[in-house]
This record gives sequence, C-alpha cells and structure tokens, in this order.
Amino acid sequence: MTDILNKIGIGKENVSVHKSTQEMYERTSKMNIPTLFDRYNAQQPQCTFGAQGICCQLCSHGPCRITNKASAGICGATADVIAARNFLRLTAGGAAAYTHHLEMVARTLKAAAQGNTTFKIQDPAKLRAVAGVLGLDTSKSTEELAIALADAVLAEVKKSADEPLLLVEKFAPKTRLEAWKKLGIMPGGTYAEIGDAMTKTMTSIDTDPVDLLLTTLRVGIATGYMGLVATITLQDILLGTPSPTHSSADLGIIDPKAVNIVAHGHIPLMATAVISTAQSPEMQKLAKEAGASDIKILGSMCTGQELMQRSAGSAKGFAGQTGNWINQEYLVATGTIDLVMMDLNCSTPGLKSMADHFHTKVISVDKLVRMAGVTDHLDFTPEKADEQAKQIIRMAIDAYKKRNNGKVHIPKYRSEVMAGFSVESCKAALGGSWNPLIDAIKAGSVKGIVAVVGCTTAKTKHDTVSVKLSRELIKRNILVINAGCVSSATQIEGLMRPEAAEQAGEGLKAVCKSLGIPPCINYGSCVDIGRIGVAVTEIAAALGVDPSALPVAASAPEYLEQKAVADGAFAVAFGLLLHLAPVPPVTGAPLVAKVLTNDVEALTGGKVLVELDPVRAADAIEAHINAKRVALGLPV
Amino acid sequence: MTDILNKIGIGKENVSVHKSTQEMYERTSKMNIPTLFDRYNAQQPQCTFGAQGICCQLCSHGPCRITNKASAGICGATADVIAARNFLRLTAGGAAAYTHHLEMVARTLKAAAQGNTTFKIQDPAKLRAVAGVLGLDTSKSTEELAIALADAVLAEVKKSADEPLLLVEKFAPKTRLEAWKKLGIMPGGTYAEIGDAMTKTMTSIDTDPVDLLLTTLRVGIATGYMGLVATITLQDILLGTPSPTHSSADLGIIDPKAVNIVAHGHIPLMATAVISTAQSPEMQKLAKEAGASDIKILGSMCTGQELMQRSAGSAKGFAGQTGNWINQEYLVATGTIDLVMMDLNCSTPGLKSMADHFHTKVISVDKLVRMAGVTDHLDFTPEKADEQAKQIIRMAIDAYKKRNNGKVHIPKYRSEVMAGFSVESCKAALGGSWNPLIDAIKAGSVKGIVAVVGCTTAKTKHDTVSVKLSRELIKRNILVINAGCVSSATQIEGLMRPEAAEQAGEGLKAVCKSLGIPPCINYGSCVDIGRIGVAVTEIAAALGVDPSALPVAASAPEYLEQKAVADGAFAVAFGLLLHLAPVPPVTGAPLVAKVLTNDVEALTGGKVLVELDPVRAADAIEAHINAKRVALGLPV
Repeated sequence: MTDILNKIGIGKENVSVHKSTQEMYERTSKMNIPTLFDRYNAQQPQCTFGAQGICCQLCSHGPCRITNKASAGICGATADVIAARNFLRLTAGGAAAYTHHLEMVARTLKAAAQGNTTFKIQDPAKLRAVAGVLGLDTSKSTEELAIALADAVLAEVKKSADEPLLLVEKFAPKTRLEAWKKLGIMPGGTYAEIGDAMTKTMTSIDTDPVDLLLTTLRVGIATGYMGLVATITLQDILLGTPSPTHSSADLGIIDPKAVNIVAHGHIPLMATAVISTAQSPEMQKLAKEAGASDIKILGSMCTGQELMQRSAGSAKGFAGQTGNWINQEYLVATGTIDLVMMDLNCSTPGLKSMADHFHTKVISVDKLVRMAGVTDHLDFTPEKADEQAKQIIRMAIDAYKKRNNGKVHIPKYRSEVMAGFSVESCKAALGGSWNPLIDAIKAGSVKGIVAVVGCTTAKTKHDTVSVKLSRELIKRNILVINAGCVSSATQIEGLMRPEAAEQAGEGLKAVCKSLGIPPCINYGSCVDIGRIGVAVTEIAAALGVDPSALPVAASAPEYLEQKAVADGAFAVAFGLLLHLAPVPPVTGAPLVAKVLTNDVEALTGGKVLVELDPVRAADAIEAHINAKRVALGLPV
Repeated sequence: MTDILNKIGIGKENVSVHKSTQEMYERTSKMNIPTLFDRYNAQQPQCTFGAQGICCQLCSHGPCRITNKASAGICGATADVIAARNFLRLTAGGAAAYTHHLEMVARTLKAAAQGNTTFKIQDPAKLRAVAGVLGLDTSKSTEELAIALADAVLAEVKKSADEPLLLVEKFAPKTRLEAWKKLGIMPGGTYAEIGDAMTKTMTSIDTDPVDLLLTTLRVGIATGYMGLVATITLQDILLGTPSPTHSSADLGIIDPKAVNIVAHGHIPLMATAVISTAQSPEMQKLAKEAGASDIKILGSMCTGQELMQRSAGSAKGFAGQTGNWINQEYLVATGTIDLVMMDLNCSTPGLKSMADHFHTKVISVDKLVRMAGVTDHLDFTPEKADEQAKQIIRMAIDAYKKRNNGKVHIPKYRSEVMAGFSVESCKAALGGSWNPLIDAIKAGSVKGIVAVVGCTTAKTKHDTVSVKLSRELIKRNILVINAGCVSSATQIEGLMRPEAAEQAGEGLKAVCKSLGIPPCINYGSCVDIGRIGVAVTEIAAALGVDPSALPVAASAPEYLEQKAVADGAFAVAFGLLLHLAPVPPVTGAPLVAKVLTNDVEALTGGKVLVELDPVRAADAIEAHINAKRVALGLPV
C-alpha cells in the first residue's frame, strides 16, 4: 500500500470537523497506516465524466462518454439518457438494501410472535394500530396479529409491479396519492419494482430520460413506504418505539477495561440480542475471567443510532455511539475494539485493513454481508439469535485476550446526547398532539422544520457541512431533525444536548427550553427518515394541506450512497425541497438536471437544490420555508 | 450532430461482414446521416478504466479508479471488488429483462386459457408434459392446466431468495444440482435474487470478490431455468413449438410495394398478433386502398427469429428476417419501413434518429420500453391484443402514405434459410431420439456441438467474428447451433441453407446431407439459448454423464449486453466452456479474471475463454472438445 503514502500534507484539520477524528487521523498517519482520507487523496483528480453522470458502462461497446466530439454513445444514448439510467440504477440499489432490511425485521417479528426467537414483541399497541389501518382483523391475539402483519408486509414485498402497494394507499396523504396516480408512478411490490427498474436501465430498453426519472420517483415511493415506513413500524413493534433517553457519543465513550463489541451497520437485530446476552451472568463471568471489567456494546453508524434510540428499552445497557461510517477505521485504530459485527452497509474494506493492524476480529452477521478476508459469518437467524449472540461475545472475549494495551489510544472527547425521539415520543412531549408545535410554527417562533439527514463524505470534510448547516438552520429558528450518519455528527458536536438550545434563534430557543429538548432532534438511523414522512403527513393532515405546502424541507448535505439516493427520490416525490451535496452525477445531462432542480416541482411539489456551501444552503432553505409560510398566510 | 461527422475514412468494408450492411452504410454516409459505426468511431479512444472493470461509480465519493498510485477506491475496494460488483450488477440487469419477458408470456398464456385474448394455446402436449414434470394435476383440462402452469411459474418468479426454484430442481441434471447445492448457489425467486444481487452490489455490503462471482453464477442459474427455459417453454405452449420451415434473410427480402412493419425486439407476442391480423380482409382492404400490395411483417433481432422459427405455425405469413440489432438504422434507411414496433431490447436511440430522416413511425409495444421522441405507446395487453394489432397496422398504413419513393434503396442481397429447429423437431428429424446424433459423435463424424450465440458488436466488425467462428467450427466437423443476433449473421451469410453442408468437414457434411439439414442450426432468439440447455441435459442424461463431460461448448463471440452476461453466467454454472469476445470488463481485476478463466472450472466444470481471433478461438474450442472426447474414451 505504499502507493497511497502520498498522504503527507492533508493536514488533520482538513479531514473532519471532529477533534476526535482529527486526532485519530494524525495517529494513523504517524503509524504509517493509510486510511480513508489518504485513499481519498490518492484518487484525486477524479474522472469528470463519471462525476457528471455521462459515462455509460452497460454494454461491451462501452465505456461511452459524452464529449465535445461525441454527443451520444455508440447506441445513440444522449447524456440525458445515460445520466438518468445511472441515477435510476443507483436508486434501485438503495431500494433493494432497504427491502432486505425490511424482510429481516418482518421475519424476526413473525418468529417472535411464534415464540421461536429470543425477541419479544415490545409495542403491541402500535401493532394493533397499524394492523387496523391495514384492515387486518384486530380481534386476534397479539401474537396472531403480529404474524398476520408480518405476512401482509412480506406479501407486499412480493407483489407484482402492477399491484399497487397497500401501504402506500393506506399511509400516504390523499393529495399525494392523487398526484402519483396522475403521473402513473404508484408502485407495486418492491422487488418487482427493482426488477422493472433494472430492466428499464438495461441496454436500449428505456431511453427516455423523463420516463427514467419518473420511474426513479416510483422506486422512491416504494422505498418510502416499504423500506422506510414499514421497516421502522415493524422494528418499533418488535424492539419498542423509541422513548426519551440519554446517551453519549464520540470516541471518548470507549471504556478501555471492557470487552468492546462494535455494532456496525443498519439492522439492529443481532446487536440487540448481543446487548441483552452480554448482561447474562454467564457472559459476564467469562469476561471477568479474561480480565475485563464488563462487556460493552458500542454503536457505530445507523445500528448504533437504533440502539441509542431504544437505550431506555430493548437496548438497555447500550454503551453509546462512537461515530458514523467514516469513523470506522479510526475507531478500530484506538486499539480497544475486540470485535466488529457488520450487519449491512457501510462496512468498508478499509475496516478490515485497519483491523489487520490490530487484534480486532471482524465478522459478518447478515447473509448478504461479505468481505474479503472475513471468514466468520454468523448470519442472523431469528431462531438462533440467542446462541449466535453468545458465540459473538465469546469471540470478542477471545479477541480481547489478544489486545495489545501498548497500542491503545482513546481521544478524550465525548458529548452527552438526548435521544429517543419518535413521532410518538415527540407528540407525548408536546402533551399528546402536534398542536403546540403547529402553534409555534404559526406564530413564527419556529419558522419551519428541516430534516438534515443522510450520510457523510470526505468530499464534504466529514460532517463539516452537515454540522454547519444544522447550526445555521437552528440559528434561523428552524427546528432540525437528524437521522443517519448526520445524527452522529451533530451528537458529537453537542447539538443534541438540551443546552444547545442556546445556539438557536430566540424563538426556537424558547420552545426548546420550555420543552427541555435540544434544537437538533434525533430520529435515529437513515431508515428512520421514514418517521419524518409520518410526522409531516400528520402535521399536513392537521393543517388540511398537502405536505408540499408546509414550511418543511429535507437536506442530505453529505449524501454518499444509494440508499440516500432512494431516500432523496422519495423526498422529491413526497413534495419536499431536497437540498443535496455533494453534486449528484447528473450535471453533464442538461435535461435531467433541469427536471430534478426545476420541472419536477410542477409535478410533485418537490425538487432538488444542489448547494455545496452550508450557509448558502441555509439561505436557500430558509427562503423556501419563508415562501411556504407566505403561501399559508403565516408571518415571515 | 456535426460532432461525429469525422466518420470519413472508416471504409464500408471495415464495418460489417455483410455486403448489405456495407452498402447501406455507404448510403447513409453519402446522405450525411451519422449512424452507429460513426458513433463508434467518435467514441475512440475509449476509457481503459471502465473497459478493465476497475472504475466504480456507485457512491458520491466516486468515480474511483484503480491506478498505479491508488490500489483501492476511497472505501478501500480493490480492483477485484469493483470489477466483481460491476459484473454481478450487469448479470442482474440481464436477469431482470428476461424475467419481464417471462412474466409477459405467462400472463398471456393465462389469458389465452381463460379465453380473454386472441391467442390460442398451440401446444397442449407440451403443456401437459411440462405440467407433469412440475407435479401439477394433469387430469385437468388444457385450459385449467395452462392456468395452473402460468400461476405456478408466476409464483416461482415471486419466491423469496431462500425458497429454491422448483424449475431448477425439476429441470437441472442431478449432478448439477449437487454441485450448486455444495456451492450454496441454488437460487430462489428471480426478483428476490435480483434484489439480493442489487443489495450485495451496493456500497460496502458485499466486498468479497469470490462471493460476488458465486452470486453471479447463482443469478445465472435463475436466469437459465426461469428467464430462458421457462420462457421458451411457455412460449412454445402458447405460440407453438418450432417445426421445420423455410424463410429468408437480409435486406433484399423487403418488398417495396407492401406496407412494411418491423417486429423489433425480443418478445414475439404483439408481432404474432399483428401478423395474424394483417391477413384479415379488413386490414388488407385498408392497405390496398392506400395503394399498397400487401402488409408485410419483417423480422428484426430476436423477435424476428422467434417469428421465423414459427413461420410454419402461429407466425404463418412472416416475411423474413432483415438482420440483427446493428442493422436497425440501416434497415430504416432503406426508406421502405413504415412502422417499427419495439417490444424490448435492443431498441437503440439511433433507430429514432434515423426514423426522423424518413417517414418511419416508431412505437413501443411494451410497458417498459420507452424512447425519447416516441410518443405512441401501445403497451401489449393480452386482453386487447387484437385491437392493438389493428391500431398498429392502421398507423403503419398511415405512415405508408407518407413514404417518399425517391428515398427508397433496397440492397439486392438475400439468403434462403432453413429454420424451425427445436429440441423436439431436432429429435423428430433424427427419428425420435438423440441416438443417431450421439452415435455420430461417438464415431467422430460429428466431433462435438458448439452453441455460437448472442449479440453482435461494432468492435467485432458486425458479425465478422461470429460468422468466421461458425465457419471454422463446421470445417472441423463441429455442429453449430446459433441463437440470438448470431442467427441473423449466419443466415445472411448462407450458413443456414442445407447447401452450406458443403462448407463443413467431411464427417459433418455427410451427416447434414443425410438429414437434409444445414451445419448451422437455428435455435432462434437469445432466449432460445435455453433450448441448448435442454438439449445438452437430455444428451448428457442419455450418456449418463454430467453436461461438463460432453464434447460441447458455448461461444458468445460478439457479446454486447447484459442478457448475454446472464446467459454466460448460466453457461459457466452449467459446466460449459464459454468462449467470450469482446474482452469482458474484468481484465483489471487479477483475481476475478483468474476465477472466471480458471479456478471456477474446479467448482462447476465450466469456465470462460477470452479470445478475439475467431481462428484461434476455434482452435481452443476444438482442443476443449477433443479433451472431453478423450476423457469419454472417444476417438479424436
């Protein structure tokens, strides 16, 4: 790996907004271990064709690129066809990964209802409410009803593309359904929709960029109501709906005396089982025999957020959040991590490279997660979860015994976090309904709500843009909801402490103080973006307007991967302004860029705003919110 | 489009093996209309990163490329991870398109059984035989059984990934099933498999190149038994199993006095309805009133092959095959085409660009086919097929009225074709069993059988490689079976006339003459590659060996698109040597290239052979066949 040792000169302050990550990057640099920021540097300059979305690698004639001397690929595909096709394919990838998550949760819920797993149904009230909306027979027992609901959702997944999803019909606002039906983008079964998207994006099948973009919205809607809303709903029923709790974040939370297991990924099932099992006398005894004080389950990425959100319930004992996906190598480089269990994206090959410099054991705990060099696969199986959790803990203890304390280094930074917000717990905090928040919005003390969500990237200097944008928004009296990797960012920077209300504008500050909440609300992982859709639907219904009329927006200020693209497609279909950075790969395609940033607004009410500077992004989002306020007759 | 007028100097002899295509290319060049070969030229030189498979465009960090200074992408993905992920994603796209084809056929079969469409079940005996193998109740009426079979196949499509496909269990050789089960690559429902493949190829989920390649084989097996075997089986039941027939090929078949409708794509449903409807007195009268002598349905690409194969039956009246996918623009440039109906891939944007220079109407007849500028969509619906066919013919007659006879130019070339081969008609020609062929193979008069199938490319000079390879193989007493775009190639070059036996080696010549068949056997479209799998399975069973033991190979000597990649994955999983050209995008990935061209043989018996020169390819294939003969104790 000497090829990427041209890393000298990046400068730790240029890689991340977080002091802990900066410190760890300095450490790995001194250890001569190349990490993500070095690989980022080695990739510069990057190909502009791909970055603009105008490189096609579908068929053996390719790669074709749109250039000054070639306005079309060999088949005749224009820049717009190529970019729209690539974009739809990215969306389909994200939709697929979310669907897998949903299937795993639905199967575990069913196994729980059948008494075949260590999991027990935690929120029977939510089960009953949701089953009722879907028209299931709610006179059944909790267990029978859970089986019926799991089966119903699994059947939705398998529907044909021309069988509209029941969950969309039942959960989407009526005004949205009308718009989507008019556009012919009411989705059917998620796997069939993914299949159709893959067919359309094959060589020379769908070469109409507008149809490809509409199909992207269609897959986005399927993602919104299945991959997001259905997943969080079943997850809440199974693991409990998040309730207010306190936790902590950043690398400083690591306890060097404990056996440290990192829950890394997006599906919190195995991790929940491991947390519970770790507290058993049998496992505690084993850990102590090995010389450890305890067994700690540390959160990483979205699985960590899910655990934090439920740390007052099914994840009681959770040790806190270490950071988001960019942190994974630096986390291992503390020398304190005994085992990382990968349950879905974004488990990077860089994680294993770093683990190989330490004693850290890396295992996969999902049947679709595999990594070169990782030979232990304890693919989560609901029926075996208890035994699998024990095996994982034993492996971690074995690894702990090999830990080299001379190689341990833990940055001292940590921040307290108030977490556990959900649609239900937010409403409870407001006294049982959205009305106090709606009144605050009407009065202008809270100007609007922005979901600042999604990933993080090295291009945006690891959380620099998301933290700055969140700060800018709260300053302008805009309530921020975070989810995904952005949650780790604002947690580490202290924006999820109630004390952060001091950083908000006067109106928002007063609201936060009266409720005892922070100005950046944690909704959890990226799948929990679905909660924002549910909340916006409820608020729009309370006001009797379409979601697109609300002083609300979404931002993925450091989007990285394809689930984020699918989320974004949902946001635009749902009628929201979607701020996006870095620049998505469509800029070489004039029609595609125009449709996404302008024309689509006339169809769905939503559109994409690309802005790399967080202050200018906040300006544009504030202007959008003000315009929506004016249209509703509210003071600006 | 002035940017690609640097086309002067390609030279017509450098673009295609066919005189007709050369002539038409000369014509479009003189007309200053850029076409595929010009666009190919304008794309040179092409990006070597994409060509080697080592460009990743999945996430917003990209594009990442493996270079001398960067041995990994930003996430840490190596060349092997990137190439294997891209390759699996290509396979998944092909599997999706085949699955769509299957669904359309299954739904039409069901509608036919219900009496809701103009189609009537043509092969009830095959229905009964296949239904029996799948364990359906064959005491039912033809109609009831057809509904049950269609439902059973549609249910297979929708299975979960962990529910093994019944069709694989029932139709694959036992030895294959054992190998696949051992490798853990028994596929489940096709859409779920495509979904899992998309999940695995998302950012940082499956980063084990070997697991990605095994998953490619898994998707290939699902494609083989669902997208190929199930599709042709239901298509035979619905449209009739091909039986010996005579037809003709090349642009010289065009009748300038007729209303000319081109059936273009892969799904022959709408085209069959149009052929039948065109012969009605009502439509004939309309055509004659417009001044035309007749209404002709001309074949293009795989839909044309399907029609030709059934021109003694459900496609009676079919006017012949114009050529394969590269010919579509040159076909329109004859000025004689009134309407092109696109039913799936490979309908290129270049087709519409050319049509805009003429009076030609372009329409889509499948819900997933769309093209910028094409506004008429008569998406095939079994229940409306009759009326849709009439509408299409009326549109064609309207277009005919606008034809400019001053712009008509038809190359004089045409070739006669013997077609209609299928597993059933081959065995019938052999007297009812494979034994005469097996005896000829044992004796060495026929050394072996090679399926020379798939697409065509400009890289391989439009059919130059496939025709040369087919000629080389028959010279060496190797029976050639063609399917897909290669069938058009060998048809146009006269290799599917019985007289072509003269070009074969002595042994094969004698066998062909005694049976009155050509040395290149037409199995039809690319989906009919499934027939080769069925034939090889039966021959292997007759000899009591695994398919990998037979003196048999497959070649996709001019592969283009993703269905061909999925076919190839099936061939390798099935245990066959697969010759492939042009070079697939894996050469930058040493482990992936090694697994595909070498290591996989120990797992499945199959492997990939990349060779661009047709003579050297024939040498290598012959050597492989000789080695298999030796192992079976047969003379070489």
